[in-house]
Amino acid sequence: MSTLMLAKTALDRITQDESRLHAYACLDPDIALAEAQRLDRTGTHGPLSGHTVAIKDIFDTGDMPTACGSPIHAGRRPTRDAAAVAAIRAAGGLVIGKSVTTEFAHLTPGPTRNPRNTAHTPGGSSSGSAATVAAGGASLATGTQTAGSIIRPAAFCGVVGYKPSFATISRSGLSLFAETLDTIGGFAKNVADAALFVGVMAGRADLMQPPMPRTPRFALWPTPDATSADPCVLAELERVAQAAAAAGATVETLTGDHGWHPLMAAQKTIMAWEGVRALAHERRVHPDLLSDPLRAYLDAAAPMDAATYLAALDTRQTLGAALNAVMAPFDALLTLSAPGEAPLASTGTGDPQFNRVWTLLGGPALHLPTGTGPLGLPIGVQLVGGPGSDQRLLGAAAWLEAALT
Amino acid sequence: MSTLMLAKTALDRITQDESRLHAYACLDPDIALAEAQRLDRTGTHGPLSGHTVAIKDIFDTGDMPTACGSPIHAGRRPTRDAAAVAAIRAAGGLVIGKSVTTEFAHLTPGPTRNPRNTAHTPGGSSSGSAATVAAGGASLATGTQTAGSIIRPAAFCGVVGYKPSFATISRSGLSLFAETLDTIGGFAKNVADAALFVGVMAGRADLMQPPMPRTPRFALWPTPDATSADPCVLAELERVAQAAAAAGATVETLTGDHGWHPLMAAQKTIMAWEGVRALAHERRVHPDLLSDPLRAYLDAAAPMDAATYLAALDTRQTLGAALNAVMAPFDALLTLSAPGEAPLASTGTGDPQFNRVWTLLGGPALHLPTGTGPLGLPIGVQLVGGPGSDQRLLGAAAWLEAALT
Repeated sequence: MSTLMLAKTALDRITQDESRLHAYACLDPDIALAEAQRLDRTGTHGPLSGHTVAIKDIFDTGDMPTACGSPIHAGRRPTRDAAAVAAIRAAGGLVIGKSVTTEFAHLTPGPTRNPRNTAHTPGGSSSGSAATVAAGGASLATGTQTAGSIIRPAAFCGVVGYKPSFATISRSGLSLFAETLDTIGGFAKNVADAALFVGVMAGRADLMQPPMPRTPRFALWPTPDATSADPCVLAELERVAQAAAAAGATVETLTGDHGWHPLMAAQKTIMAWEGVRALAHERRVHPDLLSDPLRAYLDAAAPMDAATYLAALDTRQTLGAALNAVMAPFDALLTLSAPGEAPLASTGTGDPQFNRVWTLLGGPALHLPTGTGPLGLPIGVQLVGGPGSDQRLLGAAAWLEAALT
Repeated sequence: MSTLMLAKTALDRITQDESRLHAYACLDPDIALAEAQRLDRTGTHGPLSGHTVAIKDIFDTGDMPTACGSPIHAGRRPTRDAAAVAAIRAAGGLVIGKSVTTEFAHLTPGPTRNPRNTAHTPGGSSSGSAATVAAGGASLATGTQTAGSIIRPAAFCGVVGYKPSFATISRSGLSLFAETLDTIGGFAKNVADAALFVGVMAGRADLMQPPMPRTPRFALWPTPDATSADPCVLAELERVAQAAAAAGATVETLTGDHGWHPLMAAQKTIMAWEGVRALAHERRVHPDLLSDPLRAYLDAAAPMDAATYLAALDTRQTLGAALNAVMAPFDALLTLSAPGEAPLASTGTGDPQFNRVWTLLGGPALHLPTGTGPLGLPIGVQLVGGPGSDQRLLGAAAWLEAALT
């Protein structure tokens, strides 16, 4: 199939759903078809040929506006592609449109709804990316995670979401929020595609086809916040762990707190300190165009003193290193991705409480969709590893995915 | 004095020198005067009131073009200020113009010349920033360092250059080259102004007026590459160390290699791997508009395999942590800033060999101008500390500056 045909098919599919899902911040058939013709004309072939890719609207794109989910930047036209987008194009991927982000990838929702039930949120901040992959609009989509912005929407929409180790993919051309947390990753229908996609964006051949372990070793840790999670996700985590053990994996249950709550507090402190600085321009020049919740969040963060921030960095160094060391012997830690099924859209984009610590620690995290909850919405499990253990984690995730099907 | 008067005086001064120095990529009196009038009209007062500030042309500015020293981005007009620029404006600093950067802050020189002798390079990549502060055109200027792009031009031009710990200042709105190395800092005439300036950009009140130690403890380490340095900078380092001891400081000489050469190799590997990714768009779409040396550098870096990069990250983790631990008991390590006086402009922007390792390690580094070499060009010393030791390092630098005058 030509890329032009691929583009037309994808555009038809997306257009059918768009009035219901609102997954796209920019969907311009002329641009997408021209890009498809360029790929056909130049004979560009690579590992992403045949894939349609939605780009979260905080990545600069030279051919489409990049508004970061904010009226401040509505219609902004970058003159270059972000590094990740350039890598996608060079690998033959067809950029099909810009997907909706929450405002500056923080919590204020965009218009996107969950494809499985439009009364519910797709999660955030990579809302449109998760939704369009779940709905079959794009086969891949970029995301970023600062607290829980890849894993949570992947969980709510029922797709694979993969946040690699911190700094695996260049953020050149990305709008930043919290510089020591923001991590680029992606959404796909399965682990193999997620690995291929992130491997391409990172320029990491070693991640594109990770070898599967024969008998993986998992640590099961629902975390000290498991008590606040919905029973359905706890039961699913237990079911998956048992299925893994039945299929030949070693599953060891972790106990203890491992600094969970101090680490979560440190993530919130670091995110607030860095966010108020990254958005200094917007806060100075356009405070009236920030949403009330974001403006209030930044105003509350602004007076924080350096000692508080430096103490949070220290907590990351000490407790974070200790928890990373706990994970080291395992192929992956198995834990919750989200507190439950996707909440109603009217309540926001959901809580990243099961994601903050893992983003802070800087290792890879992957959501694997494995089932359905009582509301008929997707649920699954999260696999986590220490920084740099991406290949190992992807192998374990692919093994688990295969064991469950 | 009104900010408008300040602006007029600065513009006169800059204009007198500009045909000789070529320090500015954008110098638009209308924009600078309008900004001065805005500061006067709004009554903006803060720690940078009375300061004129040049902005390296890889920081986005909403009122001036940002070309990154490349014809690819000539005339590019960002729609927002970089976070550091927004912080400068909020603190009352007057942005006076955009200073020349080498191409994408790498090695291909811009037109800027050394104010002390225009046959010589000002150093790079923050060429225009160091030159204009040395010439009294701007009282402060932003810089970034990936290998040696702050310390080296500060040394060649005879001004204070301060690269704080990695990630101290938000890179939101900055053009990236090597994401785990690029660090924002600044140039000033003295340590107090450099501390104030970086403290403002970072939103770190604790750095703005660092307390001086009564009897600082210095480690003297010319590094294993001292043998390749010009005798004049070695003699100056020795002279400064003796003066410090005479003024009451403890000075202990370090011996040993401390992983110097493996760490330098790791810095080069990381910079090349990350640089080829950050410039993926430019390399894909505009290879003809890259300079021959930069294109050749990126082409050589592109085939590098992941194992090489990951090994370099591992070297940073292990050997870097060990060298940081060596520095921990000291207020600062005293070492060379550059291999000698500024070389002829026809030979390039000089060698960052005495800066790469310190950028890799992520701690603060500061150049203190202390004397003049046989060519009549500035020389001085570099003070270095472990990550997070900025306040302590600045205090030691202020002490040393006072001890030498």
